[in-house]
Amino acid sequence: MIEPESASIPLEFDEAEKKALYKAIYLRRDVRERFLSTPIPDPVLRKLLDAAHHAGSVGFMQPWSFVVIRSEEVKSRVKGLFEQANREAAQVFEGTRKDLYSRLKLEGILESPVNLCVTCDPTRNGPHVLGRHTVPETDAYSTCCAIQNLWLAARVEGIGVGWVSILDPVSLRQVLEVPQHVIPLAYLCLGYVDQFLPQPQLEMVGWLPRAALDDVIFYDHWGKRNAG
Amino acid sequence: MIEPESASIPLEFDEAEKKALYKAIYLRRDVRERFLSTPIPDPVLRKLLDAAHHAGSVGFMQPWSFVVIRSEEVKSRVKGLFEQANREAAQVFEGTRKDLYSRLKLEGILESPVNLCVTCDPTRNGPHVLGRHTVPETDAYSTCCAIQNLWLAARVEGIGVGWVSILDPVSLRQVLEVPQHVIPLAYLCLGYVDQFLPQPQLEMVGWLPRAALDDVIFYDHWGKRNAG
Repeated sequence: MIEPESASIPLEFDEAEKKALYKAIYLRRDVRERFLSTPIPDPVLRKLLDAAHHAGSVGFMQPWSFVVIRSEEVKSRVKGLFEQANREAAQVFEGTRKDLYSRLKLEGILESPVNLCVTCDPTRNGPHVLGRHTVPETDAYSTCCAIQNLWLAARVEGIGVGWVSILDPVSLRQVLEVPQHVIPLAYLCLGYVDQFLPQPQLEMVGWLPRAALDDVIFYDHWGKRNAG
Repeated sequence: MIEPESASIPLEFDEAEKKALYKAIYLRRDVRERFLSTPIPDPVLRKLLDAAHHAGSVGFMQPWSFVVIRSEEVKSRVKGLFEQANREAAQVFEGTRKDLYSRLKLEGILESPVNLCVTCDPTRNGPHVLGRHTVPETDAYSTCCAIQNLWLAARVEGIGVGWVSILDPVSLRQVLEVPQHVIPLAYLCLGYVDQFLPQPQLEMVGWLPRAALDDVIFYDHWGKRNAG
């Protein structure tokens, strides 16, 4: 493993290294099922958290904290929050989508050995954070970059990560005793899995297709489809 | 390169592949200087955008678009926005921090061959997005995950990326002709560089230290410092 603050910084990555990064990016999945009960060893979990902690952040504010949850009691309470929020969320869909929605497994809170709440503290290293004056949301954006680091690191370790967004943040804050001013930004389920799906679950079941890359690229101005 | 939708999905990454991912994570930097004028070939830029496009997104909504900016005229207008926003931002700092702030280079808009605005469309594949009912901000969070993919992919290609957050979003939207309902979430400067700093710039100049990892980890509840 490269030391985080190594003095010697190679400019180049060789072809095998490049390929490994793209492999992690393309094979990363949002995992909601097939979690194994195998515990995640502390040194491995620490590698994931350290990878997250080495994301960039606006003004180097490092606004994130990580609440590592292994308590069955806490997990059960969060599972209850999910069930409540999911009953409300399910009501907006109709017809075949309603049927499909009800069959989808959307979280693995109890089955995954580790749950992780990633929080964002807008007051961290403040009140004046370099670069955050104009766009205050950059604290949350930085935290998301940290989450993606963790997600990719987990993938190479064979650990699936599922982001459970169907949770009321106010209730989640209460359960985890997170202070009022801190955002419980993401609730993740982590665990070894016996497989990763070849495509995202929602793509495979026909919920939505993947957009063509060219349809999300413009040049110089919004709406301009060709370069130069 | 792995095909994005390959049917055969390896579960395992070998030690060299793991090491490559951590290397990219630890050596990624927010780059504001030492950009080379070397153009970024279209196939390489496309690899970066495709890496971004393969981030997960809430309800598979894929809310992002990418405005690739090479026009000197557009860059100059954005540079003007930066200068205006930076004059205001600089005023909040006092004393030695004010001096240090004024000496920091905070953007590479004109020197970098490619600027990239990453946008987030909250209406994409809506109105009802699976998983976004409870936390609407998950559209922006997904877009940030895409940005981190791009940031890491750029690093392995030897391309520096700098996130310029000192820009008024309303003015930026006007310059790039982004529709009212779409968020111009990030403005990035991309280019090959002749070096990457061994540590984040703000850490090296003593703006802020990196937090100890243990100081940002809790167990089961906020504030609880030991596991079990």
